[in-house]
This record gives sequence, C-alpha cells and structure tokens, in this order.
Amino acid sequence: MAINLKMPINEELLSIPGVKVATLSAGLKEKNRKDLMLMVFDDGSIVSGTFTQNKFCAAPVVLAKNHLKSASAIKALIVNTGSANAGTGDRGMEDAESICKTLAVELKVMPNQILPFSTGVIMKLIPLEKINKAIPNLVKGLDRVNWLEAAEAIMTTDTIPKAVSKSILIQDQKVTITGISKGSGMIHPNMATMLAFISTDANISLEMLQKLNKEIVDTTFNCISVDGDTSTNDSFIIVATNQSKHSKIVKEDNNYKVLKSVIFDIALELSQAIIRDGEGATKFITIEVLGGNNVDQCKEVGMSIAKSPLVKTAFFASDPNLGRILAAIGNSNLKDLDILIIDLYINEILFSSKGTIAKDFDELEIQKEMKNSEIYLKVNLNVGTHKAKVWTTDLSYEYVKINAEYRT
Amino acid sequence: MAINLKMPINEELLSIPGVKVATLSAGLKEKNRKDLMLMVFDDGSIVSGTFTQNKFCAAPVVLAKNHLKSASAIKALIVNTGSANAGTGDRGMEDAESICKTLAVELKVMPNQILPFSTGVIMKLIPLEKINKAIPNLVKGLDRVNWLEAAEAIMTTDTIPKAVSKSILIQDQKVTITGISKGSGMIHPNMATMLAFISTDANISLEMLQKLNKEIVDTTFNCISVDGDTSTNDSFIIVATNQSKHSKIVKEDNNYKVLKSVIFDIALELSQAIIRDGEGATKFITIEVLGGNNVDQCKEVGMSIAKSPLVKTAFFASDPNLGRILAAIGNSNLKDLDILIIDLYINEILFSSKGTIAKDFDELEIQKEMKNSEIYLKVNLNVGTHKAKVWTTDLSYEYVKINAEYRT
Repeated sequence: MAINLKMPINEELLSIPGVKVATLSAGLKEKNRKDLMLMVFDDGSIVSGTFTQNKFCAAPVVLAKNHLKSASAIKALIVNTGSANAGTGDRGMEDAESICKTLAVELKVMPNQILPFSTGVIMKLIPLEKINKAIPNLVKGLDRVNWLEAAEAIMTTDTIPKAVSKSILIQDQKVTITGISKGSGMIHPNMATMLAFISTDANISLEMLQKLNKEIVDTTFNCISVDGDTSTNDSFIIVATNQSKHSKIVKEDNNYKVLKSVIFDIALELSQAIIRDGEGATKFITIEVLGGNNVDQCKEVGMSIAKSPLVKTAFFASDPNLGRILAAIGNSNLKDLDILIIDLYINEILFSSKGTIAKDFDELEIQKEMKNSEIYLKVNLNVGTHKAKVWTTDLSYEYVKINAEYRT
Repeated sequence: MAINLKMPINEELLSIPGVKVATLSAGLKEKNRKDLMLMVFDDGSIVSGTFTQNKFCAAPVVLAKNHLKSASAIKALIVNTGSANAGTGDRGMEDAESICKTLAVELKVMPNQILPFSTGVIMKLIPLEKINKAIPNLVKGLDRVNWLEAAEAIMTTDTIPKAVSKSILIQDQKVTITGISKGSGMIHPNMATMLAFISTDANISLEMLQKLNKEIVDTTFNCISVDGDTSTNDSFIIVATNQSKHSKIVKEDNNYKVLKSVIFDIALELSQAIIRDGEGATKFITIEVLGGNNVDQCKEVGMSIAKSPLVKTAFFASDPNLGRILAAIGNSNLKDLDILIIDLYINEILFSSKGTIAKDFDELEIQKEMKNSEIYLKVNLNVGTHKAKVWTTDLSYEYVKINAEYRT
C-alpha cells in the first residue's frame, strides 16, 4: 500500500510547557495496545474546539461542546478508542458523563472541566468499567514528553501515529506547538475531520484562539476527503497554556499571523497525514481549484472531484479516463458553472480546455504522470481570482477490504 | 457476482404498433458487438424526455433537448455506444449534428426530427465516419420485433440486456408498452439515470405524456444509486405512437392512471434492473424511508444511506456494523432531523431505536439477514406520514476492478 505515501513517524516531538500527557492499555481493543489517552493542562490554559456536523454526533461530542461552553476552565481531555460512543442514546451520554466524573475526582476538578472523546465502532457501548478502573493509573502516568505514545493511543484503522512539532519565536520568546491526529476512513469534512489535538504554550486570548481554530480548520481538516463519509466524532482542539512570555495576543496583529501560520502548517501536515494514511490509499492527490468567483465555489468543485468513486478508481488504475473528472465537476452543486471555459491539468500538463480534450493531449504522457504516487490536479475555472485546495486518495481494492473486515 | 440478483433476460418482448427498431455492429467497440440502435416512429407519434442535470452534459443531450423543443414531430432516435460524446466541445456538437443529418436524409425527414444519444467513455470523440457509413444499412434493417437486440445494442458495462413488455386494455382496446434501458455504473439520479426508452401505442396528448414522464422518473430512475456519480448522458424517453383505438388521454382521468400505473411498473423494473446489474453488485438493497414530513426529506435520508461507501462495504461483508447507517443518516442535508426518534429495521427486524441500539438487538440474527442477496432496510423517521423508496447496491472489490479496468 505505497508505504512511501505515509507521513514519516516523528520521534522528535517537543513537550509543551503546561501540558502533561499519559497513555494506557485498558484492554478496550487488542491486548497490550494503548487505547486510552489523557492530556492535562496547567491553570491558565484555554481551549478551543470545532466539532462534527453529523446529526448523529456522538455523546462525548455533545458533552465536550457543553463543557466548553459551561466550564470556567478546561483542565483535561481524555480519549478512548474501540467504541465511538455514537448512536448509544441516553446510556452513551451517562457513560461519557461517568468518565468525566471519575477523572474529575482524580484530578480534583469539576466534571465539566473535562473534555471526553471517543473513536471506534458506532452504535456500540463503551466498556465503561474498564475505562473508569484504568483512570487512576492513567493519571499516575502523566508526564510531559510521551507525545508519540499519545498519537499511538488514539489510532483506530490508522497504520501510523501522526504527530508534528514546531517551535518559533514571538517577541524573542520561544513558543512551541505540538499536534497529534488520527483518522484513516470515514473521512470527509463537514467540520474538523476525526480527532486532532494541537497544544501550544503561546499566550493568546480565548477569543483569538477560537478565531484561529475556525480559520485553520476551514483550510486544512475541512479540505480532506477519503470516502465522503463525515464521522460522528470529528473534533479539532487547540489548547494554549499561555506560558510563553510574549505579550498576550488579543488582536489580529503580526504575532497572531505568525502563530496562525505555524499552527496552520502543523494542521496541514496532520490533515494530509490522514489522507496519506487513508484506507487503502495508493495515491496522494492534491486538487487545486483556482480562478473561481469565491473560495466556496472552488472548494465545491474540488470536493465534487474528490468524492467521485469513478475518478478515484481511475487514479488507482493510473488510467487517463479523465472525462470522469469533467463529469464529477458537472455534478457539483453550482448553478453558474461555465464548463466551456475550464482548463484542467495533471502535474501541470494541460489535458482539457474549453470543455473538451486539449489540443496536444498525449494520453501516454498523462498516463505516465498518473503512475506517480503523488498527483497534482489543477482546475482553472477562469472566471475570478479565488482558489482552494483539497486533498484526497484513490479508491483501491484495499479500501473495500479494510471496510468489509473492520470489525471481524 | 451473484447472478441470481440480475433481471432475467426477457425474450418475449412485444412489438409496438407504430415503432420500428434496428441494430447494427458498426465496429465502434469489440468486433461483432452490436453498437448502434435506431428507433423510427410512425406519423402521429409523440415523444417526451427527461435528461441529466450534470453540467457537463453531452453534446447529443443538448441537441436532443433542442430538437424536442423545436421539431414539430420527432421521427426517430439513434444511440451509439463506445463514446459518450461528452466533454468533446464544438467538434462533439458537430458530430452529433452530422449523425442527425445523415439519418434525416435516409428517412426523408428534417434533422431536428431526430434525437441522438451516445453512451460510453467521456472526453473521447465518436467515430463519426463509421457511424454515418453504417446508417443506410441500419435503416434497411428496420423491423418491428427486435427489441431484445435493441436492448443489447445499447449496453456498455452492462452484463445483461434490460427489457420489459406489458399490455393492458384501455376502453377494451389493447395498449402495449415495451421499455429498454442500459446502465451499470456512474449511476446516481439527478434526473433520469443512464438511457431508458419506453414505447407504447397508447393514445395520449403530449402534455399528459410529459406529465407522466416527470412523475414516473421521480420515483423510479431518480431513486437508484450505484456509486453516487451522475452521468453526463442520462436520458429517459417515452414515445407514444397514439395508434391504439381508445379515446385520447387529455386529462388526469382513470385511463391516465391505468396507463401511468403500467408504465410506472415497467420503469421500476428497468431502473431496478440497472441496480441488479450494478457494477460489482452482490446485494440488491431497497431502502424505504417512511414517517417523514415530506417525500423529499425521505428521499434525502435514503440517498444519504445509499451513497455511503462505509454502509455499502458493510453490506458487502454482511457485517452488522450498523452504526454506519446512523452516521450516514446524520450526514444528510437536513436541518430538522430528530435522530432520537428514528427506528431502523433490516428485513423487518428492529435494530436501532431512539438513536441507539434496539433493546432486543441480536447481532447474529441481523448478520444472518444481511447474508441474503436481497435486503430491505426500513427507516421510520416517526414525524409525519410521507415516504420514499430508493434502491442501491453494496460496494465490492469487483466495483473497483471494473472501474479500474474499464478502458483497458
């Protein structure tokens, strides 16, 4: 499965002043596989979140949203794998609340200062007793540096842990950012996609952190698609411990831009890592749509291509059956699309222009390009100046195999 | 590929007074495979059509729509396979016009009295000379009875010809209806799906035929999905030769209802035959959504399930990973969906209620049901009295294989 596609495993992850992490194998999945992850934040930390828009959103998502609204300060987040605790009704909500209560007692905080997350099979109760029993040991294991283990502990069908660290200077003060994410299937943005947690010691107001969160998710996690299925549990969280010594970021100044830029880079790497680890993926496909009237139009066209099974199987086969891309564009929900002025390129080679085959179209040349494991598809709508990028995979036998055998 | 799913090949097709058919192998595809089909109508015939909403709609679709508007009477329709003549620009339009002109000369009618259709690879020019050269012989072969050959001649990735005949009495006068269709992949309704032609000698006004066409397509061809991809060439045509001796149907009376009912049955069989022959299909899945506030709401929920790759792979594996169905429902574009009152059944066995697992959920029992090749999934929204049905397939290795190898 094209191992070269995947994000390299990053073992040099930076600890974040003010954040402690712990992991544990609570026996929720295969024996000895880490399946619980805890992050605890120092006083003064702030948290922003963006969540799935799936109407069957999971109990922990509902609770996490409530806690973000009601709590004066979020002190910790906890993630279990194995069950998504979605489609689990009142019992699912009680279970999520119970985890928060158990953890709150251990940490000596209020239950609504905890954000719970779950990922795994939908419509399956979580093994509550196992989790609650494991929490005291989980808390004992807290330290600052096991970020790679944290990334491993939240994996489901993922084949590699996904983690990125960077550090920058703001007003000559060191600011460090470390992010982890998980996700491989049921990946299609309609909010953040799957689980991603980014921590930083940057000093920033909650209002500006929320703004930054929203701006970043729209151009990273909301721009990837493996299979067009939006999960019930997608969450994207940014924690700022505010421990760096630069002056607090309270408006859209240069410091905000510098911080946003580096967190954007991390979010982009983490979101692309999900595509690179996409179920059955043999190709990493970037779709750039430019020349649009607005960003939404560009994204709609890009996503219409990204979610077409026929386009994805053609990429899997390296078959330049590129009319399927035209058909996918034609299926986008746009009323004012002028198909007769669109130009299409693969790896910068024009293959379609003015709604038809490009003049110098050389099928063999395009086929050769399609055999690469990284493909750059460019669509110029030729009507305006806006653009958007989305990322996707091909659709392989392996995708079907993984999803036909997930639980067995 | 679960041969038992497929529609049986129907060799007892009834000729329609006023309609002649011809087929030919013009060398557009493999040697000796029929690839051109012609239908010619007696004077007095009327034609109604519904067409794809894909913005990259094919040149022949554009031309057929124009001809339906401009011509005083449609006299014939012609179908080629091998190329869809979509994404072929001005040249594609000239080619489609050329075919109409050549055929018009042979039939001694005007070019705009011809409806052209193409199906096959997109963004590939049609072999115009071969087609034009074959047309005189095609016209010579016209007769009343080779409907099965007509159904065969329009096949692409189809594995069986799809044809149905019925006859009824209206005012003691015999009325006969014969329909053929083709389609197997790139099947998702946003108008009629793929090509379907229904002919009858019923006596009906054009206005009522158009009404009937629209009503039928909305509940048959627009309710099927193989892969969520809407084709550039979908067309659904009904021809009425008006030769039966009953009085002309000019309003929504009982005769209209009787005729609509039988044409609906034929359209339903033909559209379901496409699903039964769906690329790689091993399951035929009926999704009934009832208890909705309106039909559109029910259809939206049904289609959201039908197009989820995760649901489709679970059905392929007979894996009762049914939370994926909840997630798919949650992904529908409906703002006012109350997920906490929805009931879900497989083959009449309740498996989810009030947004969670049903009380007596027996995984083994459900798994046994899922092993059937015909599955009935029922969703009760429990808010209103409206309902809709959609039909779909599972997603198998074979789907990927067929679409990764289509052109090679």
